[in-house]
Amino acid sequence: MSIRYPNGKAYQASKGQNKKQPEKKFSFSNRGMTLEEDLNETNTYYLERQIAVIHKKPTPVQIVNVDYPSRSAAVIKEAYFKQASTTDYNGIFKGRYIDFEAKETKNSTSFPLQNFHQHQIDHMRSVLEQGGICFVILRFAATEEIFLLEATHLLQFWSRQMNGGRKSMTKAEIEAVAYKIPIGYQPRIHYISVIEQLYF
Amino acid sequence: MSIRYPNGKAYQASKGQNKKQPEKKFSFSNRGMTLEEDLNETNTYYLERQIAVIHKKPTPVQIVNVDYPSRSAAVIKEAYFKQASTTDYNGIFKGRYIDFEAKETKNSTSFPLQNFHQHQIDHMRSVLEQGGICFVILRFAATEEIFLLEATHLLQFWSRQMNGGRKSMTKAEIEAVAYKIPIGYQPRIHYISVIEQLYF
Repeated sequence: MSIRYPNGKAYQASKGQNKKQPEKKFSFSNRGMTLEEDLNETNTYYLERQIAVIHKKPTPVQIVNVDYPSRSAAVIKEAYFKQASTTDYNGIFKGRYIDFEAKETKNSTSFPLQNFHQHQIDHMRSVLEQGGICFVILRFAATEEIFLLEATHLLQFWSRQMNGGRKSMTKAEIEAVAYKIPIGYQPRIHYISVIEQLYF
Repeated sequence: MSIRYPNGKAYQASKGQNKKQPEKKFSFSNRGMTLEEDLNETNTYYLERQIAVIHKKPTPVQIVNVDYPSRSAAVIKEAYFKQASTTDYNGIFKGRYIDFEAKETKNSTSFPLQNFHQHQIDHMRSVLEQGGICFVILRFAATEEIFLLEATHLLQFWSRQMNGGRKSMTKAEIEAVAYKIPIGYQPRIHYISVIEQLYF
């Protein structure tokens, strides 16, 4: 016998009937979302609630050839990815300039510095000189931990590398000076709460 | 007889000898540079002298198809221009968040508001609410005049349009509330000098 709700929809008796859907363990932090997607949703949350205005910059692209078919939109037919000269995210929070880069690693014991490049390091230094709030958001994929590390510390690790030292920050070093960002539902990566405690 | 300078270089007797080079009137403001190029050079000038850190955001592009030829760089084979959700330029000056859009018109008596779109207007309003410094740089191509108009004024002109009023700002209206930016050699469009007088 087929059981139906008053609205006429059939009653789904058991999970067994939905064989195509694998059973998922629900977790705030493991939803197949990338760090970028989580940050974009976080920034949208901040924007809609007038907490902060922070956007990811578009991916820089060198456009070489564009086609203009009649009566339709221009089509880019040849373009190349360019290296960014700044960090990916910036904006404003309570009047202060906010600037950061977000990166993740599969390593579980250290964070390779090759995730950053010299242009970005120079940019961070310039932002700090102008009195901006500058940091990096670091995600350890294996443990799903996210840290906010102020740029001043990153610059020190970078200098150490430049002087012949190790090419990464150990996780213990990060834990000693960075702030762990709790992962939530709304907002997902509430980095502004850390900034608020540190600077306001 | 060929006349030579002490350094051995031939003396160029008259302009007539350089027939291929058309005679150019030198002017700071008419060098075939676009407003964007002038602003990029200005921002580079600010960056190198540690005056301000302001960048143009990359053009937003929706990437549809990317080719990865072996042993060469990834080639974007199909992509489309997206509408920007923010203004084109932002950054930091003396700790303050700076945000602006730059547009030009061939009109000589008014500046059409269709140069801006609702997303950008909303963004400007959000930036002002967070205490940022927000404005537009307007260029009248015919007279090569450049104005800095604070976003508060643009928002008023926009509201007038939304309420059924005119779809442009007259040049007289702009002249009444905006600041003329002198065009120079280095920097070319010294908008920070106006900002410094207004906010510091």
